[in-house]
Amino acid sequence: MTHKEYRHLTEKLQKYIAQKNNAKVVQMLEGLHAADLAEILDELNFDEALFVIRLLDSDVTADIIAELDDDLKEKILDNLSAKEIAEEIEELETDDAADIIAELPEDKKVQVISHIDDKDHAKDIVELLRYDEDSAGGLMGKEFVKVNKNWNVLRAVAEMRKQAKDMPKVHTIYVVNDDEQLKGRLSLKKLLTTSTKTPIKNVYNDNIHFVSVNDSADEVARMMQKYDLFVIPVVDETGRLVGQITIDDVVDYIKEEAEKDYQMAAGISEDVEADDNILQLMRARLPWLIVALIGGFASVIVLSGFGNAMNRYGTLFFFTPLIAATAGNVGVQSSAIVVQGLANGTLTGSIWKRLLKEISLSLLNGIILAVILLLIGKFLLGHILTGFDLKMALTVAISLVSVIIIASLIGTFIPLFLHKQGIDPAVATGPFITTSNDIFGIYIFFTIAKLILGF
Amino acid sequence: MTHKEYRHLTEKLQKYIAQKNNAKVVQMLEGLHAADLAEILDELNFDEALFVIRLLDSDVTADIIAELDDDLKEKILDNLSAKEIAEEIEELETDDAADIIAELPEDKKVQVISHIDDKDHAKDIVELLRYDEDSAGGLMGKEFVKVNKNWNVLRAVAEMRKQAKDMPKVHTIYVVNDDEQLKGRLSLKKLLTTSTKTPIKNVYNDNIHFVSVNDSADEVARMMQKYDLFVIPVVDETGRLVGQITIDDVVDYIKEEAEKDYQMAAGISEDVEADDNILQLMRARLPWLIVALIGGFASVIVLSGFGNAMNRYGTLFFFTPLIAATAGNVGVQSSAIVVQGLANGTLTGSIWKRLLKEISLSLLNGIILAVILLLIGKFLLGHILTGFDLKMALTVAISLVSVIIIASLIGTFIPLFLHKQGIDPAVATGPFITTSNDIFGIYIFFTIAKLILGF
Repeated sequence: MTHKEYRHLTEKLQKYIAQKNNAKVVQMLEGLHAADLAEILDELNFDEALFVIRLLDSDVTADIIAELDDDLKEKILDNLSAKEIAEEIEELETDDAADIIAELPEDKKVQVISHIDDKDHAKDIVELLRYDEDSAGGLMGKEFVKVNKNWNVLRAVAEMRKQAKDMPKVHTIYVVNDDEQLKGRLSLKKLLTTSTKTPIKNVYNDNIHFVSVNDSADEVARMMQKYDLFVIPVVDETGRLVGQITIDDVVDYIKEEAEKDYQMAAGISEDVEADDNILQLMRARLPWLIVALIGGFASVIVLSGFGNAMNRYGTLFFFTPLIAATAGNVGVQSSAIVVQGLANGTLTGSIWKRLLKEISLSLLNGIILAVILLLIGKFLLGHILTGFDLKMALTVAISLVSVIIIASLIGTFIPLFLHKQGIDPAVATGPFITTSNDIFGIYIFFTIAKLILGF
Repeated sequence: MTHKEYRHLTEKLQKYIAQKNNAKVVQMLEGLHAADLAEILDELNFDEALFVIRLLDSDVTADIIAELDDDLKEKILDNLSAKEIAEEIEELETDDAADIIAELPEDKKVQVISHIDDKDHAKDIVELLRYDEDSAGGLMGKEFVKVNKNWNVLRAVAEMRKQAKDMPKVHTIYVVNDDEQLKGRLSLKKLLTTSTKTPIKNVYNDNIHFVSVNDSADEVARMMQKYDLFVIPVVDETGRLVGQITIDDVVDYIKEEAEKDYQMAAGISEDVEADDNILQLMRARLPWLIVALIGGFASVIVLSGFGNAMNRYGTLFFFTPLIAATAGNVGVQSSAIVVQGLANGTLTGSIWKRLLKEISLSLLNGIILAVILLLIGKFLLGHILTGFDLKMALTVAISLVSVIIIASLIGTFIPLFLHKQGIDPAVATGPFITTSNDIFGIYIFFTIAKLILGF
């Protein structure tokens, strides 16, 4: 549906809701995909959305709630009783169910779980709640099909049929031993073309990629991407098969991580969207601006320390923003490459080699920029700027090269250091790097100027 | 494999290659996944990699080449004859084959295609080469299984068996009419539990998501993500089924786009990785630095225009980097939210409403920052800075608020404008916004100061 079609549909829907015309509302929404319904509900106001949720059957609304925008989801769950939420949960696969329960307040969590009639389902969900949300355990679901390697084909098919009854789609048939340890997978083709008495252990494929329950979500994403997998099995510490991760959940994770990194680099500290309200946007944007402002004061203090140069070498102060901006830009470039290299594993070799490479690169870039600066300075600025003589021009050029080298080293070193400390290096990109490089850049600039010009 | 295991394996491999011990090399690499082999080859030097490619069978090396790092892939292909490449191509699925051929020089392209023995395969590849690489047509493969709605189950099963012979995995059985137009899909379960004489048209499911061959890759990614699809069929302008896109290719696309956006925001203009050589890194990093340097000169000129204020109000010049940095930071925040909002469709409503929201938000943030500035100014800087009296402090504070508002408007407006012009708004993030906001910020700062202080 296009945005216009959505709006048209939403307006009609709001009219029927206002008239409390339940039959028309149900009729309009019938047959739509849960993801589309969730988008429509996001457009309604809260009371209207709650009205629709209460009106539709829980087998439909469960999937809608799982797809809703976080804000609306939270509000809707706040307004549903533990019993109502439990009814929704019964309809969901374990991973989606666990994601919803994880967001409830502690006491409501317990109530909802106690209201789930299917005790096996409840047990699976409780197990999933134990895992960190950014781990393989946090991404996996408990819906999968497994057969014992000691069974024969006949028994395997019968058991599979039982297990697959409530599953929308079976992706892989896993093979385990008597201790439930993952041993391999079974192709459907093999199963269909083998005599019913053949033991599974004679026909299964033991070449299988898997992850461990405590592996990070990043590792899961890397594995599935590298081997082009649609599903991957998850084993616990003893090798027992405990879950399965499907690629759709990993795609959502990859998208979210990319958005987070991008926002972090842009100095936005919370996950916000363009349609969030002003207060949410302020909370996300103000913290880094305050940090940068305090950093700005540091540069004020540094500059005031060189205030005595103002009389004779005022031109230096005209160049301060140019130097600071270059330092910031170079720092961000360096840190971005390191952060990305750490994320996708292309950053190999020692730190010292890496720093040496940055120095060579900065020297090259710096010299080219310095030549451009001297040319522009000589042919364009000579007439405009008083006192911008060769000595001054060389001072600025030499400072520029030095600042570029130092800025790139800071930009390289800080994310590497944070990574070693176990801190997400992405925080080092954006305002953090620009602010610190501004201060260092200005300090280096004036220190070199002082050495050359003498003031 | 861990990085250490890779290195160990690579060293052993290099020893055998040096000894030209073909048997040992083959034995070592046997049974490894193409993605692992590609990683190992990336670690070897070029001659060693080429040796391995020539040694192994083309059914293995084809997949390896498809997985190689772009640089090594290009070099390897340069060193293989058209006939050798054609042999590799025969082994690949059409989408991977087309991706490889697309990267060859024009004359070699023609030669390789003429060397492909399987003429149907060649025809499919030539068709795929027609599409833009960032469109549904560019992502799709020609391997899929389709049945005619007018066939009965018996015929459908027989035809499917023929079609699926060379396919590693059948994801969905598509249903078409006599004109090859996509009508729906058929569940395997349905197929297996229906009498062989039943016509397909009585049992297929007509509820199917699809994309059009000219839809953008972004749209494909959005659809597959929204509806949690593992595969999606592609139709041409007349509704005929022409291909299928699998989620693994979309995952690669999403990853690459995220990396590109991130690099663009960091002022890196080409797709580079940490392990690229210095010249590649320089080419990617220098352009934006030059743009920013020229922007820096604009700020030099602006500042020199206010040079007469230096005698009495030198302190203003100490605050220039603080003002410029804040303008840059605010601009990047605003533009990042707009760019992301445009990408994921959360940016709804009119431009004017959006700008009004930014003004309100900036006013709030600006006032808070101005208060912090006044407090720090009064209690900390009063003693350090000469001439930083209340009037001067208020001047800086008022300028700060004004600069924040203007910077956020520029940061919001430019990506929206570029988007309307059909230009990727992501170029507006990073150095472009920071540089222009530096200049505007400094100009506004001194203009306001001139109005208040009078110089």
